[in-house]
Amino acid sequence: MTVANSISTKAPLSPEDLQKIDAYWRAANYLSVGQIYLRDNPLLKEPLKLEHVKPRLLGHWGTTPGLNFIYAHVNRLIKRYDLNAIYVAGPGHGGPGMVANTYLEGTYSEFYSNITQDEEGMQKLFLQFSYPGGIPSHAAPETPGSIHEGGELGYALVHAYGAVFDNPDLFVCAVVGDGEAETGPLAASWHSNKFINPVRDGVVLPILHLNGYKIANPTVLARLDDRELEHLFIGYGYKPYFVEGSDPATMHQLMAETLDTIVTEIQGIQREARTHGFTDRPQYPMIVMRTPKGWTGPKVVDGVQIENTFRAHQVPLSELASKPEHIQMLESWMKGYKPEELFDQTGKLIPELAELAPVGDQRMGANPHANGGLLIKDLRLPDFNDYAIDIKDPGTVAAESTRVLGMFLRDVMNLNAEQRNFRVLSPDENNSNRLTPILEATDRVWAAEILPGDDHLSRDGRVMEVLSEHLCQGWLEGYLLTGRHGFFSCYEAFIHIVDSMFNQHAKWLEACRHIPWRKPIASLNYLLTSHVWRQDHNGFTHQDPGFLDVVINKKATIVRIYLPPDANTLLSVADHCLRSRHYVNVIVAGKQPELQWLDMDAAVKHCTAGLGIWGWASNDQACEPDVVMACAGDVPTLETLAAVDFLRLHFPDLKIRVVNVVDLMTLQPQTEHPHGISDREFDSIFTTDKPIIFAFHGYPYLIHRLTYRRTNHDNLHVRGYKEEGTTTTPFDMVVLNDLDRFHLAQDVIDRVPQLKHRAAYVKQMIRDKLIDHQHYIIEHGEDMPEVEDWKWQYYSGSNAEKSQP
Amino acid sequence: MTVANSISTKAPLSPEDLQKIDAYWRAANYLSVGQIYLRDNPLLKEPLKLEHVKPRLLGHWGTTPGLNFIYAHVNRLIKRYDLNAIYVAGPGHGGPGMVANTYLEGTYSEFYSNITQDEEGMQKLFLQFSYPGGIPSHAAPETPGSIHEGGELGYALVHAYGAVFDNPDLFVCAVVGDGEAETGPLAASWHSNKFINPVRDGVVLPILHLNGYKIANPTVLARLDDRELEHLFIGYGYKPYFVEGSDPATMHQLMAETLDTIVTEIQGIQREARTHGFTDRPQYPMIVMRTPKGWTGPKVVDGVQIENTFRAHQVPLSELASKPEHIQMLESWMKGYKPEELFDQTGKLIPELAELAPVGDQRMGANPHANGGLLIKDLRLPDFNDYAIDIKDPGTVAAESTRVLGMFLRDVMNLNAEQRNFRVLSPDENNSNRLTPILEATDRVWAAEILPGDDHLSRDGRVMEVLSEHLCQGWLEGYLLTGRHGFFSCYEAFIHIVDSMFNQHAKWLEACRHIPWRKPIASLNYLLTSHVWRQDHNGFTHQDPGFLDVVINKKATIVRIYLPPDANTLLSVADHCLRSRHYVNVIVAGKQPELQWLDMDAAVKHCTAGLGIWGWASNDQACEPDVVMACAGDVPTLETLAAVDFLRLHFPDLKIRVVNVVDLMTLQPQTEHPHGISDREFDSIFTTDKPIIFAFHGYPYLIHRLTYRRTNHDNLHVRGYKEEGTTTTPFDMVVLNDLDRFHLAQDVIDRVPQLKHRAAYVKQMIRDKLIDHQHYIIEHGEDMPEVEDWKWQYYSGSNAEKSQP
Ligand SMILES: Cc1ncc(C[n+]2csc(CCOP(=O)(O)OP(=O)(O)O)c2C)c(N)n1
Ligand SMILES: Cc1ncc(C[n+]2csc(CCOP(=O)(O)OP(=O)(O)O)c2C)c(N)n1
Ligand SMILES: [Mg+2]
Ligand SMILES: [Mg+2]
Repeated sequence: MTVANSISTKAPLSPEDLQKIDAYWRAANYLSVGQIYLRDNPLLKEPLKLEHVKPRLLGHWGTTPGLNFIYAHVNRLIKRYDLNAIYVAGPGHGGPGMVANTYLEGTYSEFYSNITQDEEGMQKLFLQFSYPGGIPSHAAPETPGSIHEGGELGYALVHAYGAVFDNPDLFVCAVVGDGEAETGPLAASWHSNKFINPVRDGVVLPILHLNGYKIANPTVLARLDDRELEHLFIGYGYKPYFVEGSDPATMHQLMAETLDTIVTEIQGIQREARTHGFTDRPQYPMIVMRTPKGWTGPKVVDGVQIENTFRAHQVPLSELASKPEHIQMLESWMKGYKPEELFDQTGKLIPELAELAPVGDQRMGANPHANGGLLIKDLRLPDFNDYAIDIKDPGTVAAESTRVLGMFLRDVMNLNAEQRNFRVLSPDENNSNRLTPILEATDRVWAAEILPGDDHLSRDGRVMEVLSEHLCQGWLEGYLLTGRHGFFSCYEAFIHIVDSMFNQHAKWLEACRHIPWRKPIASLNYLLTSHVWRQDHNGFTHQDPGFLDVVINKKATIVRIYLPPDANTLLSVADHCLRSRHYVNVIVAGKQPELQWLDMDAAVKHCTAGLGIWGWASNDQACEPDVVMACAGDVPTLETLAAVDFLRLHFPDLKIRVVNVVDLMTLQPQTEHPHGISDREFDSIFTTDKPIIFAFHGYPYLIHRLTYRRTNHDNLHVRGYKEEGTTTTPFDMVVLNDLDRFHLAQDVIDRVPQLKHRAAYVKQMIRDKLIDHQHYIIEHGEDMPEVEDWKWQYYSGSNAEKSQP
Repeated sequence: MTVANSISTKAPLSPEDLQKIDAYWRAANYLSVGQIYLRDNPLLKEPLKLEHVKPRLLGHWGTTPGLNFIYAHVNRLIKRYDLNAIYVAGPGHGGPGMVANTYLEGTYSEFYSNITQDEEGMQKLFLQFSYPGGIPSHAAPETPGSIHEGGELGYALVHAYGAVFDNPDLFVCAVVGDGEAETGPLAASWHSNKFINPVRDGVVLPILHLNGYKIANPTVLARLDDRELEHLFIGYGYKPYFVEGSDPATMHQLMAETLDTIVTEIQGIQREARTHGFTDRPQYPMIVMRTPKGWTGPKVVDGVQIENTFRAHQVPLSELASKPEHIQMLESWMKGYKPEELFDQTGKLIPELAELAPVGDQRMGANPHANGGLLIKDLRLPDFNDYAIDIKDPGTVAAESTRVLGMFLRDVMNLNAEQRNFRVLSPDENNSNRLTPILEATDRVWAAEILPGDDHLSRDGRVMEVLSEHLCQGWLEGYLLTGRHGFFSCYEAFIHIVDSMFNQHAKWLEACRHIPWRKPIASLNYLLTSHVWRQDHNGFTHQDPGFLDVVINKKATIVRIYLPPDANTLLSVADHCLRSRHYVNVIVAGKQPELQWLDMDAAVKHCTAGLGIWGWASNDQACEPDVVMACAGDVPTLETLAAVDFLRLHFPDLKIRVVNVVDLMTLQPQTEHPHGISDREFDSIFTTDKPIIFAFHGYPYLIHRLTYRRTNHDNLHVRGYKEEGTTTTPFDMVVLNDLDRFHLAQDVIDRVPQLKHRAAYVKQMIRDKLIDHQHYIIEHGEDMPEVEDWKWQYYSGSNAEKSQP
């Protein structure tokens, strides 16, 4: 491991090339400043006046010149080496730079025909930025070439890596803010290189944008010396190149030389691996670019240093209305870029500079990889019916539902092996989550050392396991955004680790829906398992079903939540999710052996409707029910049916209707969610006046939140997780939360008027059962046989005669 | 920077010491295995039979011997160097080891008198582990000496650093799982050393527990060679020592020698800094301990390698019921530790070994730092009344509420400077959040290079800024858990980054409430600002008020949410939060200049009640209201009052009651939350049948969720954030979400029957106003003057005559 501590001695740019690339950079800087400040007089043909300036100055200058500098140099690389490249701007608040560059290269005007490459277009370009009715201030979905908004910092590198998996020709320039580098997700992301196979994957070039500062502080990395930084990045598996300085001419030469070296090195790595096979993990080049924050901007304002301090972060000159000299400073700042040398009289970039940009789809703003919906291919899916569990009678056989799903996913993996567009991700839980069968079709990918005893670990695996929910989420996002498909399985409680990443992705998807040129991408599919009710090994810390509450805050156009109660419904739901586009699908399903309820035909119908009466479990066919027992989630479904069993035994004349909900969104009014069933349908299923006992997988409030507008809401009584739990038996978990069969039965007794008076003995029996349970588990350490071995007894269908107890 | 790549040559342990420390380790291992497996026959006095074994085997063996090894050696250090030490077990799933060690040192029996140091106690110790009615499987709050449960991985190091801030004598041994090290928060935590001042802070000794595997995979760091690891940790600012091997005798010598070297080095660092002042950041020692996963456990089971593979993670022998030979293997595994040499006939650890443990509070299980409530001192607080904004008439003066809070916090900082028990944390947003005044009392702490132009940056600062919400949260948790106080300010949207950490901390607090010997600690106080309604610079990605929905899922005993509408209420709330114990307090308040409503007297009363009618804004004093206009949050309060203004102008006879909610928990039924007001009170404030238009800061559903059981819920109509937004004007943000004064007025018109017929003209006026708004902002880029300059006009109190329009 050696390090190239580049101090340029060569000068790869001819004087003319140097002058040109610098002019191109100046043009981008000029357009960036224009966007932040101006509403008029874009070419500064007139002396600058207050009325040319926007009333509210909103944007971030500090990071922008650095982003522009890199963009210009990557343009040069693309042309010189015929690269297929995209640009990820970690400091996405440098949005003006991304917009400026895509405008210069012509893509912006192609996507937004109104923003023409002339004075009028430039004026509109300036005005619209961070302006009502205009465009966001970040590298948002509206920005051509962006797959990364960079609003919430930390995901630049992980998105970049997600993009290059299975894109062998792709080169992603990932600019990481030195502030951003302090975040956890970013700090973990460097190790993504342990998952890159240079034969089949593309390459990420990380550029640490060491401009020294974040909003109001220096950054940690900027205050390490180069020796320590060098160690750090070598430790992360990179070969760091240092590009440091502030003199533009020197910096252009140094950057060009460094990038030339790096591309050659990358090509060498790829050639070697693609010719001789991938054996030893290479040391990938990366760049530490140390330049001043707010480079080329005002040096000192009102006696205070701005350039190369944190004060350059947002708007360096901001009191234009009260300080006329600030207007002059702004004017000379902008004129310092010599716009007259860059744009012709009509406001168009002069041809000598325009030709510096790549052409066609090689322009980073036009690269289809950054608009993944253009490239997406449907997954080839096996017929999920082929994986069905054979169900003769409901509630009599047990299966691990997620293992069944694993077999389906195994064959999805097989069928798309050639397309190379499907990956499965998990934070070291693939097998724990019973998706083990997938490993029959592929391995886990691993680019670091592999030892003889390793289990399904190889250079070519398509299962990605790393103990970081952030990396799983971020890689998957990058993979999906560039037009591929994926599936993420996670312990339910720990998916909260990526709440904020989910939020940002959902917002991205929603924004794209309003941008005609952005094409829909594959849905982000979660399997949440090892869920709250089965934490036998782990207890309280592993019990949190609240991700659903986070998800449901996002737009109904984007989010879907499914709680399949058994393997066949899980298969049907998973098939549906893998086919869907542009959603976030959350599937919650257990991994433990559980009773199975529906044969595949019934499962498909049930999942298609999203919720329905389970006739075979109900006995109100010929009449009004006395009570509706609703359930959502596998464990609540089991407990509900066991409660029904208990109630029918003790109150044979009690008319019970059992309703199961797979698609949680059906509960909401149609006005709130497209899956919502009509009020009429809701009333017909849940009645308008009978008690509803709802056993829910998650926090009970969620059901109230979804249904508070429904007619019969006042009679709705929900049981769910109420933060009671520890390492105890599975049945004790539901008992602790009043979600068990006995409590549910008691809820019914308490709410059905006709039972009130004659139920005293049964209520006492329930009380005693719960005490028995308590004693039994402490004595035996496991659940009572009558609980553990309980099966459904009221056979359906052809066995109708058995259908009474 | 040099590296000690320790290959032991010396042998610091005498043969006897070696034999003893190994015996102590064996005792801990024996007790750990016993906890995982046995319900009886604890000393293996009888031949082991199936009936001695627990029916469900739940626990994690793999990490445990390594944790035990380290524990034994830290005991030696404590005694030898008279250290004040605690132990943070990153792989908290190694709970059996933590329990075993605290049992061996005697603390366990002191906390749990039932678990005696004899055969009977040992049997109970074994049985209770991961058993119904027993103890959790992790290093939970129930575990003496623990400040870190280690259920959700990633926070070992950040908790450890939080503990040593301002604890100059504390030594925290922080064991980091090599799987855990892949997580984002952990990867970022290494840089915590840039925030340590060796003069006033203690020291963290990170031990990377490189046992090679996580649940089912190798770990990334384990598959780097030592050279690369060495670079990595030097890059992180450490001096790595390698302790590698599997032969116990060699390993004991190596570990003892390495730890001796390290303690000397640490003492040197501290002595130097404490004598000559802290100038240059030292290279802190850390250990890479490479040992087999499941060390000393079964090597091969059923022909499959277990030790030193991922298969050792949980329970190596698990089919005891079906495979009698497994019982024999278990027996010989346990007997291999030679219990008869470790425990006497009564089951007590023999004195020669017992004396290896430190005594009294120096035992890590008894160290009061791990039970912070024992050490906590009240904060000295200035009188918050002294910071009051002078309010003559409500809604006429503007102030930045959080800046006012900043002045209060500045003096809190001053008053506790001597106690050294208060820190303020923020992800680089302290000034952005207008808490700038705090920097008049203290600096930001910075242990890396400081340059002349730096702003309020010093070795001794008590404001902690790092661009990582994870580090802010984790440091604060560690600081609070060891008995100190803190305040965390954060952009509202990005607090979601620590959703899962909040969850875990809330669970920890809740669990402690049921453990008599755990004393209450200071509350974790959040200020969420730069909130959803004022993202002028940033837009959609920065708009998410959903943290409240996450918080409210946790136990009512723990969580509190406040939405003070102005500076004086904010002061009152903040004072209350800083005095409180054992809660998580969430305060949401804006940082922009906003109209102020209540004088301090009114503010205190309002905050004490939590919600109340604002009489001065209402005109239903003498009669029933026609409508209740409720609000929670600063921007919604402003819009509500502006709507009231509009309505009273146009419908002077309309009787409006204005209700403001500061303490969100008051809305819940008393049965759900201790702050909940009674139904009677709720009915009297919100009426039982009048329309309620509720303008809410967050997602509207939350209000429904809190109030669905209240009488008048059916007439409740809530406006809040509905995921509409971009970079636009502040008023446009509320318009986009129907939360503006005009929509609110329209909501009233649509719901008050008497207005239905005569309101057509006013409704049209509203429509036109909204169109005017639209045009105006596009034309001018800022809000209409009538909106921006609006003030409240109906003067209250002494100016009663002005109280009609
Ligand atoms: C997770 C997160 N926390 C806080 C912020 C607020 N914020 C916006 S920009 C910024 C500083 C970024 O510094 P750096 O990454 O160095 O970018 P640059 O210097 O290039 O602007 C911060 C803290 C954020 N956007 N995301
Ligand atoms: C954030 C998080 N993700 C996933 C898990 C599930 N999990 C429990 S233990 C474990 C492996 C831990 O490996 P390591 O840190 O190496 O610990 P050790 O090898 O010492 O057991 C995982 C992934 C978890 N506890 N926390
Ligand atoms: Mg920076
Ligand atoms: Mg490990």
